This record gives sequence, structure tokens and C-alpha cells, in this order.
Amino acid sequence: MAILERHDKNAVAHLQMNAPERLNALSDEMLQALQAQIDVLKDDTSIKAVILSGIGKAFCAGHDIRQMTAGRATADKGQSYFEGLFARCTSVMLGLQQLPQPVIAQVHGIATAAGCQLVASCDLAIASDDCRFGVNGVNIGLFCSTPMVALSRNIPRKHAFELLTTGEFMSAPRAAELGLINRAVPAAQLEAETRALADKIASKLGAAVKVGKEAYYQQLEMPIEEAYAYTSEVIVTNLMQPDTVEGMQAFIEKRSPDWK
Amino acid sequence: MAILERHDKNAVAHLQMNAPERLNALSDEMLQALQAQIDVLKDDTSIKAVILSGIGKAFCAGHDIRQMTAGRATADKGQSYFEGLFARCTSVMLGLQQLPQPVIAQVHGIATAAGCQLVASCDLAIASDDCRFGVNGVNIGLFCSTPMVALSRNIPRKHAFELLTTGEFMSAPRAAELGLINRAVPAAQLEAETRALADKIASKLGAAVKVGKEAYYQQLEMPIEEAYAYTSEVIVTNLMQPDTVEGMQAFIEKRSPDWK
Amino acid sequence: MAILERHDKNAVAHLQMNAPERLNALSDEMLQALQAQIDVLKDDTSIKAVILSGIGKAFCAGHDIRQMTAGRATADKGQSYFEGLFARCTSVMLGLQQLPQPVIAQVHGIATAAGCQLVASCDLAIASDDCRFGVNGVNIGLFCSTPMVALSRNIPRKHAFELLTTGEFMSAPRAAELGLINRAVPAAQLEAETRALADKIASKLGAAVKVGKEAYYQQLEMPIEEAYAYTSEVIVTNLMQPDTVEGMQAFIEKRSPDWK
Repeated sequence: MAILERHDKNAVAHLQMNAPERLNALSDEMLQALQAQIDVLKDDTSIKAVILSGIGKAFCAGHDIRQMTAGRATADKGQSYFEGLFARCTSVMLGLQQLPQPVIAQVHGIATAAGCQLVASCDLAIASDDCRFGVNGVNIGLFCSTPMVALSRNIPRKHAFELLTTGEFMSAPRAAELGLINRAVPAAQLEAETRALADKIASKLGAAVKVGKEAYYQQLEMPIEEAYAYTSEVIVTNLMQPDTVEGMQAFIEKRSPDWK
Repeated sequence: MAILERHDKNAVAHLQMNAPERLNALSDEMLQALQAQIDVLKDDTSIKAVILSGIGKAFCAGHDIRQMTAGRATADKGQSYFEGLFARCTSVMLGLQQLPQPVIAQVHGIATAAGCQLVASCDLAIASDDCRFGVNGVNIGLFCSTPMVALSRNIPRKHAFELLTTGEFMSAPRAAELGLINRAVPAAQLEAETRALADKIASKLGAAVKVGKEAYYQQLEMPIEEAYAYTSEVIVTNLMQPDTVEGMQAFIEKRSPDWK
Repeated sequence: MAILERHDKNAVAHLQMNAPERLNALSDEMLQALQAQIDVLKDDTSIKAVILSGIGKAFCAGHDIRQMTAGRATADKGQSYFEGLFARCTSVMLGLQQLPQPVIAQVHGIATAAGCQLVASCDLAIASDDCRFGVNGVNIGLFCSTPMVALSRNIPRKHAFELLTTGEFMSAPRAAELGLINRAVPAAQLEAETRALADKIASKLGAAVKVGKEAYYQQLEMPIEEAYAYTSEVIVTNLMQPDTVEGMQAFIEKRSPDWK
């Protein structure tokens, strides 16, 4: 079994973090495996949606504290190692957002620290209703400064601040209320609900979803006038695609589109 | 009957989109009529609030797909036409935000694609509780890239992303929870509730509301220190207005202000 | 009794606004007292959390309208005075955010106009469930342009716009739903709940909370890639602190950290 399993079904790739004995910690090996899949998936037009989940008791418990501590045994006390680690971690987090396919986190057990960041970095997330979230590095004196980048772009600022400074857990229903996840479902339905969402997205025109996802994150960071100038170009380009011409014609003729 | 009816009552202008057979699609004619009213209203200090609603079964079903498809019959396959169309659409959407008067969307039936964008672009919105919202262009291969600019500035990012990539509808109560609308009310009360909100705003000092609305959207796009420097100038200017001097004096004397 | 009482207990400083006869208005004197405490607290590493509350019937009713009106009796009709007033007010609002310690608003009665801004400017807020919030300057012709800077960074834009243009009150439970406060609690539990939150935060490693709080607000205003580059540096610096080395080692050894 690899540290990151991949099982494709129809046009959906399912990535399963597989280090249950370490609660799927984002070790060097796990980050490398995630990056490798991101690098492959970004050019694979046959895959139209991605599911990310974890095997074992937890989705992901964040960085591997033991491995990080071992990394201190260098002349610079780990400084270079840590700089590299967070560069690689950031590359994975941004890589999920930059993939052309929507990425859905299927979350159970716990998602803490960088594991919570992973959920926040996915485009969509569904969690079992007994799942718990936290950015609890503060409890060991390590403020979750990188996880908060993703978290604070998902939920209101006072709630994010409370989680970061108290280190407390948040329930899945609460995470849904605040916007960290799309919804919480009974554990028995988690896999089916996530799969149904992935299949629905995979049934859409991939080229349209690809340009739309890229434009989504780009325009979020622009002033509104610039965002409109940019997305107007995007939508006109989308309009000129043959499959979109067909999609609109099919709509007028009240039939299903015949996409290539 | 014009494609955009206007009925003024007291200091409130009520704009009614009137193309029920096309579900008030944002055709060239509808956009032109909306722009014409925006151009008139922006200099009309007698109007202090604007209501925007739709006649027939729907508030607005977005762009006119038939007209757009007809627009492909040019040498450039519609490219120039589409570029113009989205420039005109953007002008209307930003024009609502730039009007000195608050604009309230009174929404019923459905508000989809650019119709949902219209709701998101108004300053305020009230919907009947059986109304449905969607950004469902993805269903025909045309990602709602321009509508998402307004939508993603109204609701949390994972929820906006889900609507954009699944093409599913959202109920009015859910739209209220997420922030796309101010509230959902029973259909029988929709008109009265919207009117009451407009009348309340129209009862305020128009000059103060005007500077406040403009500053609101400007400061939202600034870093916080710049936002404070800017709004501090705005509030000092507001303080020097004779009607505001009177308003503050009246407050101290516990009487109603005598505004010009 | 001073206009701003301070009572320290353990590592928590409790600031109590004490001008009950004026509903703790942000007069020149109150702003000066707040600024003086901010200037002292920012260098006091023995204090690890701050509570801000008001004595009397209200948390804070905003600016002192009588004092402002008296300020008009100058050759420039108050222009210079108002410019100075809003510069000093902004300095207090940003000062709370820039303090190394988390600041918790303990809110009861009413928090209106700049009083609501004060709540929005604190990192965290707990309110009694009968408390009411408003940005109601519009009722006297003075749009709450500076309060909206903080408010609009806490709650969704359509809801903030409604409060600003209608001048209506919002209940504490509603404020909690929208994100202006962390939660509403029964009045009898307000003080204990706020104290418990402050004590919890004060139990964390102050140096980690300090760098985390500063980074939190800095990264919120950055594009995401820049935010990651910045917070990666922050977390690596945090990792090299001796107390954090100890915190991580203690975690591995399943014992409590021995922090200096």
C-alpha cells in the first residue's frame, strides 16, 4: 500500500491518504506523494473531479511533529529544513487550488492544524457530522500561522481568531454554519454524498469548469472593476468554444448537449 | 408597456423588468433600458431609494440565450458582439452599485445566472421564501464567470464554488443564511416588506446616505489603514453639512431634525 | 474613579469604560484614556489577554455628540477638531488590533455607532443575549462611515449595508450569527464566560500568540501567495523559539510543556 492511494472511477480520481498510524500526518513523504499526484492530475483532462480523504481514524492531524523535531538535528537547528518544509507544504495547498479539477475534501475523525488547512484549501468539503476541526498548534506553542491563511479565507474573522488562539475544537455542523465545509452528513452517508457531488461536477463540461475554477480564485483577489474586466474576457473565450456553442444550441432546442 | 416600467411613489423609484415571456432575460433591450434608468437616476436627488423587481413568473433568468446565439451569425462568430454585451452588462451591474441611492432587489420565482448576479449587485435584497437562486450556466457549458464576481463578494467561498460548479438551485431561506439576500419573506408580504425597507431608507438624509454608500464600496477594497484615512475624510465632510449640523442639534434637543 | 478603570488578575488586564452617565461615549477623555492604556499594554509582556467592558447601562453609545457639537465653536466650525478627533479614534481602533495581546469585548446593553465599531475592532467579542447593536448615525444625518470599516470586515456586506442605511438595531443572537461577535450568552454568565475565554488564551505561550495575532491581520490583506510566503517565515521563526522547541518536545513525550 502506498502512502497515498489513488483509485479512479469514471472521471473522478480518489486520493486516499494512507498513514493511519500517524493520523495521516503531512510528513515529508505524504507531502511528496500529494505533490506528485497534483503534478500528474493537472495535465490529465480525463479526470474531472478529485476526492481527497484519509484512511484510518482521522482525515489528517497536521504536520508530523516527531519528524519535524528530528529535523532540528542539523547545524542550523532545522532552520533550512523548516523553510523547505513550509515551501513544500504551501506548494501542495496552492496546488490543490490551482488544479483544473474541483477538489472535494471528504473529512472524518479529525482535521487539525495543517489538516484543517488542507480542508480549507480544497474547493469543496463534506464532513461526517461527528468530525472535529481545529487549528490547535497554539497548545504546543506553535501558532497555526500557515493554516490560518486558508482558514481565514473560509470563515468570518472573529471565529477564525478564536479557534487559532484557544486551540479548541469545532464540530462539523458548526464548521458548516461558518463556511469551512459545504455540509455535515451522517458518517454512514459521507462516502456516497461526496461521490455524488464529484460525479455531478464530473458530468459538466470539463473545459468550462477548468476556466471557471481558475477565474474564480483569480477574481477573488481583484478590485471589482478589474474582476469584471478579467472575467468578461474569460466568459467570451468560453462562449467561443465549440462545446459551449453546442451546449447553448441544445438548450434552445430543449435537448441534451452532444459534447466531444 | 415598456420593457422596463418605472413607477415613482414618494421618494422611491420602482423599476419593473417587463419581459415576462422571456423570464425578464437581460437582452440587449433590457440592458439598454436598465442603463438608461441608471443614467437618469444617478442625478435625480428627489429619488432616495430604488426597488428593482420583475413582472411575471420570475425575477430574471439571466442572459438571453436565443439572442446570444443569433449573435453568432457574424464574420467573427459573435466575438465582438459578446465583448460588447458583457461590457454593457458590467456597466449595468456596477452602475447599480455606483448609484447614489440604495437599490433593493425584490426577488420572486427564480433569479439565475446573470439574474442572480443582478440580485448580488443590488445593495439589498428581499425574496419570497419560495424563490430559487442559481448560477447554472455550467449546465450548458458556459461557466457563470461574470456572475461569480458579484456572488463571491456576497457569500462564503465554498458555497459559491458549489453553486457555480454543480449548477444546482439554492432556496431563498438558504440564500438569506449565506448573505446573498437580507431575508426571505412569505410571497404575500414581499412587496410590502420591500416597500417598507425602501421607505425607511428614503426617510433618512439623502446626502448622508449618498456619501455613505459611495464610501462603503470604496473602503471595502482598501487595506484597513487606508480605509480609515479615507472614511475619516468622508465623515468630516459629512459633519460639515448644514443638514447634519441640524441633525445633531436636534438629537441633543430631543426633537426631530428640520432638514432642507 | 477614573474614566477608564483597569483591574489586572493573573495575566489578564480588564479595562472598564467608566462614564455611565454618558453611556461610555467615546469623548476626547475616553479616547485619551484608551490610547494611554494601549500604549502601556503593548510593551507589557506580563499581560496576555485584555478584556474591554463598560460600566453602567451600556457598553458604549459611540461618539459624544454634545462634545462634538461644542467643538463647532471655532473659526473653522470644528473642521480641525473633527479631523483630530477621527485621527485619535482611528488610532484607538487600530491600536486594539495592533496590541500583541488578544482583546475581548465584553458587551452588554447597547453598542452603537463608534461603540459598535469598538466591538468590531476587538479580536473577539462576547455579548449578553439582550444586548443590541447598531450603526445608527444615519438617523441624525451622520453616516457611520468610520464604524463601517470595522463592521464590514466582520459581517456579510448586504447585512452591514442594511444596518448602516436603516439605522436599525440588531440583536445579540443575530450579531453572533453574522460574525460580529463570537457568541451571545445569558447576561448572568457574561462576565464569567468572558473571563474564561481570556484565561484560556492567557494560558497559551504569549510569544506565539503575539506573532500569530500580528500575522493574522497582516496576511488577511495580502493575496494568497504573498500571505503564504509571509506566514511561512513567521512560522519558521516561531519554530526556532526555545519555548516552542520545548512545547513540541513535551507533546511528543505526552507531558505538559515547561515554559519560561
